[in-house]
Amino acid sequence: MDTTFLLNSVWVMLSAILVIFMLGGFILLEAGSTRMKNAGHIAGKTIFTYGLASLVFWAVGYGFIFGGNANFLVGMSDFFYSGYDSEGAALSGSVFFLFQLAFSGIAITIALGGFAERAKLSVYLLFTILFSALVYPVVAHWIWGGGWLAEHGKQDFAGSTVVHLTGAMAALAATILLKPRIGKYNKDGSANNIFGHNQVYTALGVLILWIGWFGFNAGSTVSVDGAFFGFVALNTNLAAGAGAVAALLISWLVLGKSDVPTILNGALAGLVAITASCAFVDTWAAVLIGFIAGVLVFYSARFFEKKKIDDPIYALSVHGAAGVWGTLSTGFFATPELATVGLPGLFYGGGFAQLGVQLMGVVSAGAYAFIVSFVLLIICKAVLKGLRVTEEEEIMGLDVSEHGSYGYPEVFLDSKSEKFSS
Amino acid sequence: MDTTFLLNSVWVMLSAILVIFMLGGFILLEAGSTRMKNAGHIAGKTIFTYGLASLVFWAVGYGFIFGGNANFLVGMSDFFYSGYDSEGAALSGSVFFLFQLAFSGIAITIALGGFAERAKLSVYLLFTILFSALVYPVVAHWIWGGGWLAEHGKQDFAGSTVVHLTGAMAALAATILLKPRIGKYNKDGSANNIFGHNQVYTALGVLILWIGWFGFNAGSTVSVDGAFFGFVALNTNLAAGAGAVAALLISWLVLGKSDVPTILNGALAGLVAITASCAFVDTWAAVLIGFIAGVLVFYSARFFEKKKIDDPIYALSVHGAAGVWGTLSTGFFATPELATVGLPGLFYGGGFAQLGVQLMGVVSAGAYAFIVSFVLLIICKAVLKGLRVTEEEEIMGLDVSEHGSYGYPEVFLDSKSEKFSS
Amino acid sequence: MDTTFLLNSVWVMLSAILVIFMLGGFILLEAGSTRMKNAGHIAGKTIFTYGLASLVFWAVGYGFIFGGNANFLVGMSDFFYSGYDSEGAALSGSVFFLFQLAFSGIAITIALGGFAERAKLSVYLLFTILFSALVYPVVAHWIWGGGWLAEHGKQDFAGSTVVHLTGAMAALAATILLKPRIGKYNKDGSANNIFGHNQVYTALGVLILWIGWFGFNAGSTVSVDGAFFGFVALNTNLAAGAGAVAALLISWLVLGKSDVPTILNGALAGLVAITASCAFVDTWAAVLIGFIAGVLVFYSARFFEKKKIDDPIYALSVHGAAGVWGTLSTGFFATPELATVGLPGLFYGGGFAQLGVQLMGVVSAGAYAFIVSFVLLIICKAVLKGLRVTEEEEIMGLDVSEHGSYGYPEVFLDSKSEKFSS
Repeated sequence: MDTTFLLNSVWVMLSAILVIFMLGGFILLEAGSTRMKNAGHIAGKTIFTYGLASLVFWAVGYGFIFGGNANFLVGMSDFFYSGYDSEGAALSGSVFFLFQLAFSGIAITIALGGFAERAKLSVYLLFTILFSALVYPVVAHWIWGGGWLAEHGKQDFAGSTVVHLTGAMAALAATILLKPRIGKYNKDGSANNIFGHNQVYTALGVLILWIGWFGFNAGSTVSVDGAFFGFVALNTNLAAGAGAVAALLISWLVLGKSDVPTILNGALAGLVAITASCAFVDTWAAVLIGFIAGVLVFYSARFFEKKKIDDPIYALSVHGAAGVWGTLSTGFFATPELATVGLPGLFYGGGFAQLGVQLMGVVSAGAYAFIVSFVLLIICKAVLKGLRVTEEEEIMGLDVSEHGSYGYPEVFLDSKSEKFSS
Repeated sequence: MDTTFLLNSVWVMLSAILVIFMLGGFILLEAGSTRMKNAGHIAGKTIFTYGLASLVFWAVGYGFIFGGNANFLVGMSDFFYSGYDSEGAALSGSVFFLFQLAFSGIAITIALGGFAERAKLSVYLLFTILFSALVYPVVAHWIWGGGWLAEHGKQDFAGSTVVHLTGAMAALAATILLKPRIGKYNKDGSANNIFGHNQVYTALGVLILWIGWFGFNAGSTVSVDGAFFGFVALNTNLAAGAGAVAALLISWLVLGKSDVPTILNGALAGLVAITASCAFVDTWAAVLIGFIAGVLVFYSARFFEKKKIDDPIYALSVHGAAGVWGTLSTGFFATPELATVGLPGLFYGGGFAQLGVQLMGVVSAGAYAFIVSFVLLIICKAVLKGLRVTEEEEIMGLDVSEHGSYGYPEVFLDSKSEKFSS
Repeated sequence: MDTTFLLNSVWVMLSAILVIFMLGGFILLEAGSTRMKNAGHIAGKTIFTYGLASLVFWAVGYGFIFGGNANFLVGMSDFFYSGYDSEGAALSGSVFFLFQLAFSGIAITIALGGFAERAKLSVYLLFTILFSALVYPVVAHWIWGGGWLAEHGKQDFAGSTVVHLTGAMAALAATILLKPRIGKYNKDGSANNIFGHNQVYTALGVLILWIGWFGFNAGSTVSVDGAFFGFVALNTNLAAGAGAVAALLISWLVLGKSDVPTILNGALAGLVAITASCAFVDTWAAVLIGFIAGVLVFYSARFFEKKKIDDPIYALSVHGAAGVWGTLSTGFFATPELATVGLPGLFYGGGFAQLGVQLMGVVSAGAYAFIVSFVLLIICKAVLKGLRVTEEEEIMGLDVSEHGSYGYPEVFLDSKSEKFSS
C-alpha cells in the first residue's frame, strides 16, 4: 500500500478524533454556561444528538454532500455509506467519511446552542434529523462538494461558513422562535444576567475546543503534503491566543472588569475566525485576525443582548459574527508567498474579487441556513405541538421535566431524605 | 528503518494513548454515577489502581499473556519487560507492550466498578494485584496469546470477551460478595434509586470513553495495513450512536421519560457490543448491533436490579450483557465481502460453526473470570478481615473513612468554620 | 516529500497537541486544589496566560532560544516566526515551533501555580510576559538551544530542568514575595489545611497530565527514528504508576491514612522525575526513579509547609524537588545498553562526571530562574502597586474581586433571588 495514502489516513484519522473530542468541549461549555437545573439535560443531549446526527449523516448526509448525480441542491449517491471505496483515493474513504461526519456533528451542536434551557426534548430529536439531512448537507455540498459556490471560487478552508455560520444561523432561527428565557428581560426591556453555573467547566471546555480545533483546521488539509498542517495549526493557536487577550483587554477597558466568560469567548472567536483563513495567511495576520475577533465578539454579544435575542451560549456571536469576519478576512489577508510552504494547488490570491465571492458565499449560505431552519422549526412546532416547555417546567428545570431526574440530585433533593442521601 | 514499522508504531502509540485516556472517562463516569461523599475516593482510586496494574503488568502480566514456554494457563517468559525486543517485529515492542498494558488497566477498572461505594481501600489494592496477575492474563493468553481458545478459532477483535466480559465477571463476583449498599433495597425487597451526583461528569465521561474507543477498537488492527483502522472506527462510531438513540427510545416508550444515565449507558453498550465485531461486519450491521445493545442494556439493568444485585456503575449490563451480545453477534453478522477492504488474514466467515466457538469462548472465559475472582475475593476477605467498610463508615462516606478528607470539603465541612472557608 | 520528514512531523504534531492538552490538566488540578471562590479565576487565567505566552513566544521567545547570532544569554534571530523555514529540516519548522511553544506554555503555568488564591490579575498578565520573554528562553537556550550548559554536556531529555525546575523556581520566588494565604498559618506558627474544593477535578487533571506527558516525553525524541518514542512512553508510564503507589504507601504508613491529593502528587512527581531520564534508563530504573519521587514529594510537601512557604498547588514539591531528583537520577541510572534500542546519537553514559554536569546545570539554571523571577516580581510590585489583592478581596474570593462574577454563582448568590435562580 502507498505510504502517502497511509500517512494521510493516519493524520486525518487523528484529526477526526480531535473534532469528535470537541463535543466534550461543547458539553462543558454549554453546561457551564447554563444553570444547574438544566445541566444533566444539556450535557446528555450532546451525546444523543451526536449519535443521531451520525446515523443521519451515514444514511443520507454524506451522499447529499459528496455523492454523484448532483442537482442544484445536493448529490444523489453513496447513501448508507459502506466504507468499501478507498481504492485510488488519496486517503481511506472511511477515514474521510468519519472526518466529515464529525463536522456535521459539530454543526448541529452549534445550532442546538440556541435551544438551550427552554426547548423540548422532542424538538432536539426532530430538528437534529431535519438539520442534519436538509440544512447542513446543502451548504456543505455548495462549498465543499463541488456545488455552485465552489464553482465560483468560494474559499472556506475548514468551515467558517459551512460549519460555524450554518450552525449559528439555525441557532438564530431557534432563538427568535423560542423567545427569551423566563427572567432574561425585565418589563422595561432591560436585560438580566443569567449566569452560567460553572466557569471551571467553561474554561476546560474552551481548552478542549482549542485542542480539537487542531483537528478541525489542520486536519482540513486532508493530507500530510509538505507537513503543511503544522503551519495551519500554528496560525490556529496564535489566533486563539490573540482572541483571548483581546477580549480580556477590551472588556477590562470598557467595563472595568474582565469576566471569565468574555475572555473564553474571545479565544473561541479567534478560533472561529481563523478557521476560514488559517491556510492562506501569514502568522502576523493570524494574530491580527484573532485579535479583531476577540474585540468583535465582545461587542457582538452586547448587541444581541440589546436586540432581545437571548443566546445563552453565545452561538450567534462566537460562531456567527466571528465566522463572518473570518470568511471575509481571507479576502483581506491571503498571501501569495504561502505558496512556497503551502499545499500545492491550495494557494489562492485574495484581493477584492475574492472578497466579493466570499461575501456572496456568506450571504447565500447564511440565508439558506436561516430560512430553511426557520421553516423546519415551524414544522417542528406544528408536529410536536410547540417548541418550548411550559413555564412551570422551565422554572423546575429541564433535567426533571424532560428526563425525570436531576443532573445534580444531591443539590436539589432534600438532603434529609434517607432514601437519597444515606 | 522500515516505513511500515514506523507507521504501525505511530498508529498504535496513538491508540495506546487513547485507551489510557479512557481512564479519564471512567473517573468521570464512576464519580458521576455515585454520591458526593465518595467522589474523591472513586476518582482517586482510578489513578493508583491503574498505576499498580501497570507495575503488575510489567512484572508478570505481559509475560503470562504473550511469553514463550506456555502451559495451559499462561506463557512463562518476558517478565519485567525490558523494551529491548523490537527487532524484526511489525511494530515497536514497547508500543505494543504499552497498548496491551492499557487494556489490562481498563479491565481492572471495569472490575472495580462492582466495588463502588462500599469496599475498603485495602481491598482495592490487593484485588488489583491479584486480578492483574491471575485473572486477566489467563483469559488474554487463551484468546490473544495463542492459548486453547485461539487454537479453536475464537474471535475477539478488540476485547469484548477478554476485557469487557472478564472485567464484568469480576465485578459480578464483587457485587455478590459485597452485598448491596445501605439504602438500596427496602425490607419488602423493592429497590430505591441511589442517584449519581453529577450527570455532567457522566456525559463527559461517556464522550471521553467514546473517543478512547477509537484507540481500543481501531488500534486493535495493530497495523496501518490498508488503513483498515478507518473502517473499524466508522463501525465503532455508528454502533455507539445507534446504542444511544435506541436506549433513549426504549426508555421513553416504556417509562414515559428517558433519563440521562440510561441514554449514556446505551452509547456505552453500543461501544462494548461492536468491540468484538467491528472488523468483521458491514456498516448497516454495526448500526443494528449497536441498536440492539442499547435496548438490551435497558432491560439488563432492570433485570439485575430486580435480582438484588447492586451494581452502581452498571458494569454488569454495559460490559457484561453487551459484551456477550457483541461476541455472539460476530457469528451472526460477519461478512466475507469485507476481505476486500479488510486486513489481509483478518477475515473470517461467521456462520453457525463460528457461533459455537464464540459461545464456547464466552462461557469458558466468563466462568474462569467469575470463579477465580470469587475465590480471590474470599482470600482478600480473610487476609484483610472483611471486604467492606463498616456501616458507620459507609454512611459517612469513603472519602473520609478511607482517605481522611472530603473530596468536596466545602460542601461537607461547616461553612462557618474560618479555618476552612476563609 | 521525504517520508521520514512527514512521519516526524505527524508524530511531533501529535505530541504538541498532547502537551497543549496538559493545560486542561492544570486547569483541573489547580481549580480542584483551591477553593470555590477562586475557581473561575484560576481556571480562566490558564487560558489567557497560555494565549499571552503563545504571542510572546512567537514574538521573541523562540528566537531567543533557537535563533542565530547567539550571545551568552540568548539567540538573536527568528523573531515573529514566519513558519516558512522547513526546507532541509528533519521535520516541519512550524510543528517544531508549536511543540516548543507548548513547553513554554507549560513552564509559565507551573510558575503561576505559586501565585494561587492571592495574586492580582494584572500581575498574572505582566509576569506572564516577563517570564516568557526573559526567564524561560534563557534557560532553554542554555540547555536546548546550544548555550553553555549544552556545550558542557548537560542532559535534560524532555525538560526536568528547563521546564519543571524553571517553573518551580519562579513559583518559589512568588510564594516568598506574596506570603502565605490568610488562614494558612496560626499565630503559633502551626499550619492549617486549606483543602482544595474538588478532588474529582484533581484526579481527572492528573490523568490528563499523565496522558499529556506522553507527548511531553516521548515527543521529545522529535523524531520517529527506531520508534524509540515507544520506549520513552513506557518508562514514563511506569514511573508515574510507581510514584502514585509509593506516595500512597508512604502516607498510609506515616499518617495512618492516605489522602487523595498525596497519591495524585505521587503520580505527578514520578512523571516529573522521569522527564529527564526517560530516554536513558532501563524500565526497572524508571520504576525505581518514580517510586523514590513518590516518597520524596510526600516529605517535600511537609518540609515546605513547615518552612512557612504556602504553595497551594505543590509546585515546589512536584516540579521542584522531583525535577531535581529526576535530573540527578540520570547520572545514577543511565545505561549504555540502551544504545541498541535508542535514538542514534542520543545515548550517553551517565556516571560521576555526568552527575557533576547535571548538578551544575540544576544549580545554575535554578539560580538564574529564581533570581531573575524574584527581581521581575519586585518590578511588577512597583509598577502595579502591589502583587497581592487586598485582605477583603482575598476573603471575598478572586472570582468576584478580579473578574466581577462568581465561578459558581448558584452556590454563592442568594438562591432566593428570582433574578438568578429562576
